[in-house]
Parts: sequence; C-alpha cells; structure tokens
Amino acid sequence: MQKQKLNIIKVGGQVVEEPDTLAALLAGFACLDGLKALVHGGGRAATRIASQLGIESRMVAGRRVTDEAMLNVVTMVYGGLVNKTVVARLQSMGVNALGLTGADLNYMLSDKRPVKDVDYGFVGDVRRVDSEILADLVRRGVVPVLAPLTHDGRGNMLNTNADTIASEAATAFARHFDVTLTFCFEKKGVLSNPDDEESVIPQIDRELFARYVADGTIQGGMIPKLENAFAAIDSGVSRVVITRADMLGTDSGTVIV
Amino acid sequence: MQKQKLNIIKVGGQVVEEPDTLAALLAGFACLDGLKALVHGGGRAATRIASQLGIESRMVAGRRVTDEAMLNVVTMVYGGLVNKTVVARLQSMGVNALGLTGADLNYMLSDKRPVKDVDYGFVGDVRRVDSEILADLVRRGVVPVLAPLTHDGRGNMLNTNADTIASEAATAFARHFDVTLTFCFEKKGVLSNPDDEESVIPQIDRELFARYVADGTIQGGMIPKLENAFAAIDSGVSRVVITRADMLGTDSGTVIV
Repeated sequence: MQKQKLNIIKVGGQVVEEPDTLAALLAGFACLDGLKALVHGGGRAATRIASQLGIESRMVAGRRVTDEAMLNVVTMVYGGLVNKTVVARLQSMGVNALGLTGADLNYMLSDKRPVKDVDYGFVGDVRRVDSEILADLVRRGVVPVLAPLTHDGRGNMLNTNADTIASEAATAFARHFDVTLTFCFEKKGVLSNPDDEESVIPQIDRELFARYVADGTIQGGMIPKLENAFAAIDSGVSRVVITRADMLGTDSGTVIV
Repeated sequence: MQKQKLNIIKVGGQVVEEPDTLAALLAGFACLDGLKALVHGGGRAATRIASQLGIESRMVAGRRVTDEAMLNVVTMVYGGLVNKTVVARLQSMGVNALGLTGADLNYMLSDKRPVKDVDYGFVGDVRRVDSEILADLVRRGVVPVLAPLTHDGRGNMLNTNADTIASEAATAFARHFDVTLTFCFEKKGVLSNPDDEESVIPQIDRELFARYVADGTIQGGMIPKLENAFAAIDSGVSRVVITRADMLGTDSGTVIV
C-alpha cells in the first residue's frame, strides 16, 4: 500500500515570534494540502522573558545552557506561550492543531545530555519516538504542533533543539507516511553566496555538501542543519527542503537528496 | 450498553504548585483505577510570575482580570509550566498524560466575556465542548490533563476558571462515560463548621445547600463551586465529590446529589 504524504514544517523562533512573519507562515501552512505537522522554536522569546525575570541566557556553540530556572522559562515559553499562540491561530484558520511536548502521549523520550566539556544542564538527547497514537491522529486530520521540549521519563522536562525534534519526528513518521521535511529559516534556501539572496543552491548531496563546507561556502548553523537533513534522509524521510517561511507551498528552496 | 466509568479530578493551584502536595496528589491520581482526566488551576504561580515580570494581578470577586500581558502570563504558566510539569510527572508514573488547552483539538471553544460592570478582559465563557476525539483517546488509555485555558476560534486564547473547565468537560464526557467529577481543595470536604476539619457534610442536596447559604455556613468561593456541581449533575454527570487532594481514592468528602 502506498503511504500517504505528510508534510512536516519546521520554523525557527524568529518566524513565530514576529506577528508579520508568523501570520505569513501560518497562512502558507494552512493552505498546504494533505496531512501535515508543524515544529517550532522560540529561543528569542525565551531569552527575552528570561531576561525580564532576571535570568541570564548562556549559549555554547549555539545551544542554550539550561539550568533549572531556564528549564522553567523554556517550558513556559515553548510549551505555553509560543505553542498555544500557534495552535489558537491555526484553529482560527480551520486547522485542527494539537500542541505537544515530548511528554504529551509520551511521544518523545530523551536522556539528559551527559556532561563532557560543557554541562548543558536540562538538555535532552532523543532516545525514543513513539509515533503510533500520533500517526492515528494525523490520519484523522489532526495537525501536531510540536514544541522543542522532551522529557526523561522520570518526571523532568528537557530542552531539545527544534531541528532535532523535527528530524526525529520526521524519521518516526516515515514508518507511517511518505514524509517531506521542510526547514524554514530567514533565507530562501542554502546560498552559495551569503550576500546574494538569489544564489539558492537548488539541490545538494553529500559530496557537494562536503565540498562547500571545505571551501567555507557553508558554515555556522547551516552545518548541523544539513547534517540533520542527511541523517533524516538516511532514516527513511523522502525529501528534505530548506527554504524561507513565506515560500511554503512553492517549489523554491534547496532540496537535500 | 453500560457506559464505562470515568473519573475527572479537578485540583486548584495551591495543590499543584507545592511540591509536597503535588506529589501526594499525583500518587493518588496515578493509583485511581480505570479511565480518568485531570483539570488543574495555577493562579498562584501566575500571580508570582506576573509579579516578577512587573505585571500586577487584579482580582474581582475571586476572578482574575486578564489584560493582554496577563493573558500571555496565564498562557505560559497554565498551558506551559504547570501543565507540562504535571504531564511529565504523570508519565514517570506510567500514566499516559496528554496536556491540553481548549484550543488543542478545538475541544473547548469560548466567547470573550461581555463587558458589564467589570471588564474581565481576555476571559472566556464556554460556548461549546467537542469531546469526540478526546473520548476516543480516553478509551485508548490516554489521560487528558486540562489547563484552565480556552480559545475563541478567532485566534485568541482566553482565560477560563478551572472549576468551569472541569464541569464543562465532565458534562461533555457524560455523553460517553459514567462520570464522577471530584473537586479537590484544601479541606476534607464541605464543612459545617469552618474551624473543624472533621465537620465534613457527607452529602448535600439543593435544599440543604440553600439552607446553608442562607445561614452563612457555606460562603465565599464554596458557593460557585457548589453551583457548578449542581449544574453538572443536572447535565448528566453521575456524581460530584468535594474532598482534599490527598484523600483521592477514599470514600471521604462531600457527595453532591
């Protein structure tokens, strides 16, 4: 039996925290045909609210160090403020959204990251994804809206990078569906010239990726994003796309094969 | 066909915000046999975090006035911090919890309360409860954990009293299940003498309620709680119990008939 198509869209904090870009994203997302799910970040809002609460944000290599006070902030901001704002907005557009953290339905279990050079605190590395109940809900037209939070099965929430949530969820859903995973960010795709928004690389494979990393064309946060993308393809995801949030539903962007 | 039994437990903010009382509550709740759901408050945590953010809490007749800043706080605190803390704890006890606001699965839609003498702001009066998908999930062993938040169907979250959420959910679930609705608070039940914790009124009907209200035995926040309870019974809920959180699963408390 041919699998049904499922679109999983990941958007970063910047998109969901600005009213204009959020509205554009949700309008595009609501118009996508067929089965779908949304994964969101929220780091900027977390940093802003933490700061208002007198809690300092500390980042190491782009990842948030999450002590107990910061865990409470991200649980509030990702699981509450950002997630429910998106869910309510989608419902108003006729999308039957269901906001989830990994603790809900026990769908994504993780292990607190072991302390090596850096103690990231309450940060979770994904151990297991249970997509059975979720897949049934998706088939019934429910649209999961996934916050970047997991749990350790021992009563603690854990902070998990939204790109990781997206690729882990995509991989798990690939057992049930023909999955396209789209990462939205502020550029139209992976650019060969960072100063030229039109220099989108239409398609990228491992060989080209290695060459671009070696010559510095691809650098910084784009490297783990693409590594995640290749890992997802290796694990059964049909197609990974990197594009800008307002280009959803068009053919633009970089396709990872 | 006889309906399956479903226990809906409502706990106030004081119980879920203190680690000791929360642990006792969740231990009792996890041990309840059969199908169940939990409804929680969180007002004290909302007041505390609002205050840390420089936002003043204003109450009128025990109800929170919810301006836009306060709506963001309750969305964070009820939908994120309190809800996900409870869900993660329940998962660690083998309870397959699913945290929900009214926007999730569009299960509880409300109307922003019209301004009369008081402008309560973003406070929702329940218009419609859709329990179909939720009832299916409950039959599969999923345990809904309901935050005191609804939505207006036009993209806005609304603040709704947790007692109201509990009785509206109980009424909707009564179409599918034989529902017992239990309100937990800090006393062992409805007391005939507020200074004597052992003076629990074992059973109360409308007539006795009217008499106790008239002579001042029952007053304050207990009056709307009991009015909610009688309304739930009138709408098909089999049994309403008022008791202390640590007495869950025992026969103590006041039964409303």
